[in-house]
Amino acid sequence: MKIQRILPSEEAADLLDLVRDLAANELAPRVAEFEANHEFPREVVRTLGKAGLLSLPYPEEYGGGGQPYEVYLQALEEVAYHWLAVAESVNVHNLACFGTATYGTRAQREELLPDMLSGELLGAYCLSEPEAGSDAASLSTRATKEDGGYRISGTKSWVTHAGHADFYNVFSRTGGPGARGLSCLVVPAGTPGMVVHEREKKLGVWSSPTAQIGFDSVRVPSDRLVGREGKGFLIAMGALDCGRLGIAACAVGLAQAAVDYAVRYAKDRRQFGERIISFQGVGFMLADMATQVAAARALTLAAARLKDAGLPYSLEAAKAKLFATDMAMKVTTDAVQVLGGAGYVADHPVERFMREAKLLQIVEGTNQIQRLVIAQGLA
Amino acid sequence: MKIQRILPSEEAADLLDLVRDLAANELAPRVAEFEANHEFPREVVRTLGKAGLLSLPYPEEYGGGGQPYEVYLQALEEVAYHWLAVAESVNVHNLACFGTATYGTRAQREELLPDMLSGELLGAYCLSEPEAGSDAASLSTRATKEDGGYRISGTKSWVTHAGHADFYNVFSRTGGPGARGLSCLVVPAGTPGMVVHEREKKLGVWSSPTAQIGFDSVRVPSDRLVGREGKGFLIAMGALDCGRLGIAACAVGLAQAAVDYAVRYAKDRRQFGERIISFQGVGFMLADMATQVAAARALTLAAARLKDAGLPYSLEAAKAKLFATDMAMKVTTDAVQVLGGAGYVADHPVERFMREAKLLQIVEGTNQIQRLVIAQGLA
Amino acid sequence: MKIQRILPSEEAADLLDLVRDLAANELAPRVAEFEANHEFPREVVRTLGKAGLLSLPYPEEYGGGGQPYEVYLQALEEVAYHWLAVAESVNVHNLACFGTATYGTRAQREELLPDMLSGELLGAYCLSEPEAGSDAASLSTRATKEDGGYRISGTKSWVTHAGHADFYNVFSRTGGPGARGLSCLVVPAGTPGMVVHEREKKLGVWSSPTAQIGFDSVRVPSDRLVGREGKGFLIAMGALDCGRLGIAACAVGLAQAAVDYAVRYAKDRRQFGERIISFQGVGFMLADMATQVAAARALTLAAARLKDAGLPYSLEAAKAKLFATDMAMKVTTDAVQVLGGAGYVADHPVERFMREAKLLQIVEGTNQIQRLVIAQGLA
Amino acid sequence: MKIQRILPSEEAADLLDLVRDLAANELAPRVAEFEANHEFPREVVRTLGKAGLLSLPYPEEYGGGGQPYEVYLQALEEVAYHWLAVAESVNVHNLACFGTATYGTRAQREELLPDMLSGELLGAYCLSEPEAGSDAASLSTRATKEDGGYRISGTKSWVTHAGHADFYNVFSRTGGPGARGLSCLVVPAGTPGMVVHEREKKLGVWSSPTAQIGFDSVRVPSDRLVGREGKGFLIAMGALDCGRLGIAACAVGLAQAAVDYAVRYAKDRRQFGERIISFQGVGFMLADMATQVAAARALTLAAARLKDAGLPYSLEAAKAKLFATDMAMKVTTDAVQVLGGAGYVADHPVERFMREAKLLQIVEGTNQIQRLVIAQGLA
Repeated sequence: MKIQRILPSEEAADLLDLVRDLAANELAPRVAEFEANHEFPREVVRTLGKAGLLSLPYPEEYGGGGQPYEVYLQALEEVAYHWLAVAESVNVHNLACFGTATYGTRAQREELLPDMLSGELLGAYCLSEPEAGSDAASLSTRATKEDGGYRISGTKSWVTHAGHADFYNVFSRTGGPGARGLSCLVVPAGTPGMVVHEREKKLGVWSSPTAQIGFDSVRVPSDRLVGREGKGFLIAMGALDCGRLGIAACAVGLAQAAVDYAVRYAKDRRQFGERIISFQGVGFMLADMATQVAAARALTLAAARLKDAGLPYSLEAAKAKLFATDMAMKVTTDAVQVLGGAGYVADHPVERFMREAKLLQIVEGTNQIQRLVIAQGLA
Repeated sequence: MKIQRILPSEEAADLLDLVRDLAANELAPRVAEFEANHEFPREVVRTLGKAGLLSLPYPEEYGGGGQPYEVYLQALEEVAYHWLAVAESVNVHNLACFGTATYGTRAQREELLPDMLSGELLGAYCLSEPEAGSDAASLSTRATKEDGGYRISGTKSWVTHAGHADFYNVFSRTGGPGARGLSCLVVPAGTPGMVVHEREKKLGVWSSPTAQIGFDSVRVPSDRLVGREGKGFLIAMGALDCGRLGIAACAVGLAQAAVDYAVRYAKDRRQFGERIISFQGVGFMLADMATQVAAARALTLAAARLKDAGLPYSLEAAKAKLFATDMAMKVTTDAVQVLGGAGYVADHPVERFMREAKLLQIVEGTNQIQRLVIAQGLA
Repeated sequence: MKIQRILPSEEAADLLDLVRDLAANELAPRVAEFEANHEFPREVVRTLGKAGLLSLPYPEEYGGGGQPYEVYLQALEEVAYHWLAVAESVNVHNLACFGTATYGTRAQREELLPDMLSGELLGAYCLSEPEAGSDAASLSTRATKEDGGYRISGTKSWVTHAGHADFYNVFSRTGGPGARGLSCLVVPAGTPGMVVHEREKKLGVWSSPTAQIGFDSVRVPSDRLVGREGKGFLIAMGALDCGRLGIAACAVGLAQAAVDYAVRYAKDRRQFGERIISFQGVGFMLADMATQVAAARALTLAAARLKDAGLPYSLEAAKAKLFATDMAMKVTTDAVQVLGGAGYVADHPVERFMREAKLLQIVEGTNQIQRLVIAQGLA
Repeated sequence: MKIQRILPSEEAADLLDLVRDLAANELAPRVAEFEANHEFPREVVRTLGKAGLLSLPYPEEYGGGGQPYEVYLQALEEVAYHWLAVAESVNVHNLACFGTATYGTRAQREELLPDMLSGELLGAYCLSEPEAGSDAASLSTRATKEDGGYRISGTKSWVTHAGHADFYNVFSRTGGPGARGLSCLVVPAGTPGMVVHEREKKLGVWSSPTAQIGFDSVRVPSDRLVGREGKGFLIAMGALDCGRLGIAACAVGLAQAAVDYAVRYAKDRRQFGERIISFQGVGFMLADMATQVAAARALTLAAARLKDAGLPYSLEAAKAKLFATDMAMKVTTDAVQVLGGAGYVADHPVERFMREAKLLQIVEGTNQIQRLVIAQGLA
């Protein structure tokens, strides 16, 4: 990927170089095998953590990278270019740190953040439930107060890193119905009463473990409440805004990988005596794909710059997530088409790209939810 | 699938009822397991053969069903509705019978057709090669004449039923370069020199075996030449015209299955206190999906009626294949979206539908080739 | 337009030939001038009436053509191919006859139908109101009963043939709120109290007059009530079902005209030393356009055959209207693109086609209403 | 238009405020009338010139604004938001200044630029010919050298400002065939031998005059040759790169106007007892429109930043032009749809927006040419 990037600082440019190197050297050689084996690359994620890539947008004070989102997202894009599942791990981990970093007390931050941000502790994010997907405010997992802490009971679904994370952000109902009754608790892995269910058989992103987690009267001390009681929905939505930007960047990286692969193939493959890229029927398709990727990247970074400037960016994050992931679905599907029969088999990664793209239209709020958010912003 | 069909005869209506029953009783209960196991359902195909469904459009004289294509395609659609791979087997088998039925000598027809049309012998179709995909006229497998027969050498790729078929239509070069140098030979399975390569790891349609086949000086007697020497390309293209209609019908059946599944889910699933189908954001998507399927079905049957009337239908077959398969790709992708996270996992068949749809945009001429054919027809 | 049509009878084939001749000889030479002058071609419509084309699907008993909808729609398509506004006149006139023909008493039919069906009297259809467009059931024009008749007061909008029609189907409220309070009255032109407002300045279809009509205590005798009181909504919806098929056929004819024009231009125009149709960038676009038109035609006729068979066809009519008109918008826009700068000026009719296509996405229920109808049919 | 813009300087922010005020006060009140009358608003353009808006990206040394393209394009977008034809005038004028500013001798710049950049002299750009549209390198207008000057003969088509401009950049053949035989000459209005043909009857952008210009042995002194002989194609392409960015910005402004208008209407208009924006069928359409506009804006500004940084930007300009103008076509068409029947008449500006959008897909290289450029960049 040789995207001409205009970065806000020399430090950022160096960082991107580092990420590109790491991705090419540590991710690219491993992705095919781990994906085929449905194996979570914990060590690879740890390597990223050691290089500081798991916490780029968080304050340096606690071990973060102190980078603007504009830079973080481009780093994430480079990771996704080589391995979507790892980029998704980075994104989820960032979500899982969000609550503590943004709403945590000084004590919580000092105690928890350094290990979180170094990636020593891998995070997970437990919001969805079997009956509460798009409608998160109606979730039914309950955290009942009892002396000095809470007991959580319920079932969380679609938990990335389930069984591999070291801590879980669990959104539970501590109050009445609706959004205002929710709170956020940080639960360490291994707390008694947590049961990780059977791993989901996903269409793609196989190396990333996803599962339901059952909470059966899981005890959490009071000092693991992040923010005040009733602030859970606010924290979840704030994390989602960040996460949507992250997913948009993942989509851009994935789609760029598909375009680059298809272009290389089309320059190589000959039919009717010509390289097939020289047929407008193929060339124009690739031109449209490249254009769509460029638009998605630009939109994502424009939203990030709003965030970096401290301006409202929630609607723009929704637009970026919607546009970039719909784009990635289309572009990866077309990339398979450029390869024809070759694209349909596992000898080439484009069929995997296509399977992976579909996830992105669904996570961090389906694209229908994004449209709802945007429409409400217009109304 | 309760499509309101206007059929040309009562016999046809009965036939469709039979197919629907067979599909519901014999295919539906087996599809998930065979697909998951990548296992070819030879017995299921045999059952279809015994019921007469492997040869519907062929003359009754030789054991065919004597049905118009308009009826055959609707039967095929019903099969695809429950199991795409089996529908594809039917389609490929029909292609494999085409040469003998249409260009065979009386002797060939009397000798070969009855077992072909009963499905006793399963057929395969060997046209593509590693370096000759879209550009079939440039294929390089050679059939060299020698006393009383031919010796075939070369490699054929993307062969459906490879290793499971009982006979193979092999298109080989008997003459000079270009389309006029090609001939069609029927090669029985087990002929020495044929080597079935490793099975392709396809994105979908797993129960259907696909592989390259190597031909190393494979001996075929002269009476297995179908049509005259040099007629191979003509036969191949004639078969493809039929095959394109077949693929279009497969796409319609597959997409209808996706729509029906998504509708059922959307009527059942509740969020924000409502069945999600009642949200226009979901309902309108389903309306568009249903509309697209209906258009593809109508276009496919309109093309079939031209064929049945003995009119030129090649361009209309290309349009039907193009439209129906692009439609199926979009509709199945959207069906996954309607289910959200649930759509992304193997608990529901929609992710499989989406993987399967992609194949249809590629086989029997990629959709780029269809556009080329149509554009040339306009010019 | 040389579409290969499979027609249900020789009579129908002759009829189509007649229509084609009439359209080529009477419509084609006049369309440019009447459109440019915004002049309603009353005489041209009368000529169609004399040839029996204004009443093809109505019973021969009253002077109709006794043709199945499948045939009528193909005739309408041929008219639209040469002059959309005239085809729309035919469609509206047919709507205006629908109530009397379907729900009229024997006396009404005998008295009114012959002149309606001969086209001697041109009809109009008054349903929409400024505040009741998509939501027809909420219309507020009131017909108050008084001795031996009704007095209608209110304002009707988007009335085709306003000021030119000889009779108006006016849907008014005779009862309480909602759909069950509506009735249908046939009002002769020139009845005191009717005021035709200023002609609408439409984007296209200029030769067709459209305006609001004010009704100020307009007196209608009781024998002009069609169907019983309270049946108005039912009549309006029945007429709309027919009208949607008509609009779909109009869209197909218009789009076919655009494709044919663009193809001719692309075969003629040379750039870079080649006819531009030979560039895949243009040829593939034309192939997609031709495919879309063929799909829309097939879908429309499939819906018509359901109606002709006496089966429910309302949902299929909505699908045909939705698909065909969205298709026409896209195809005509692309036709302008094929011509480039030449397409953007009035020297060629394609910019007119594009302006006209937009109307079709809106009339007889916007395409959003079609989606609503279809979605409700699925739910 | 209240777009949250992050601008590179406070000066730029002030400039944008100024443009917004000017556009709201000077353009908005006049656009409807001038467009309806097909009247070129020369005084309005002069007002922009006096405010410095006709030369924002040119050096302050000669009277330009010295602004980066990123800022200029946002100003242009604000102009297009209120009046596309005027924005196109600005863009064309900028193209017409490009040759002199970039390739002119010091003497030419000192003599010509101040009046050009102040807008005192309005420019035009003569590249296309009846037989050389997309294939500019094959143009046949010839400039024959004769003592101390050239004599130009030929016909130029699609000339914006024809008959209103004060100077014309005329690309003519001074050498052999192909791109290297072309040169650029600046011809003052009123030079004997220039004949402005009849004004084109365009689909939209009516206030902007477009016509063919015939050159019959038009005498130009040698010091009006811009760049060296044979550099014409290079200059034309350089200008086109800038012009494509300009058209992209125009498309963004136009589409934003359409979105804003449609949103206002949908918030106001009630059907079925609700504001129609609250129906997802409308709201999601508006959300998609808003998203597409945001993506186009971001892509356009990203390309501009490359130019501002002195990096290659030609491919990115082509992507921005392609994406933004296809987007504007779709968004304006959908805006009409949101208004329904009201959108189809001249009482609201959305039908005008739709007519205007089509131009943008064609000018400065059709979108097919953009795809060609991008595809060649990939190959």
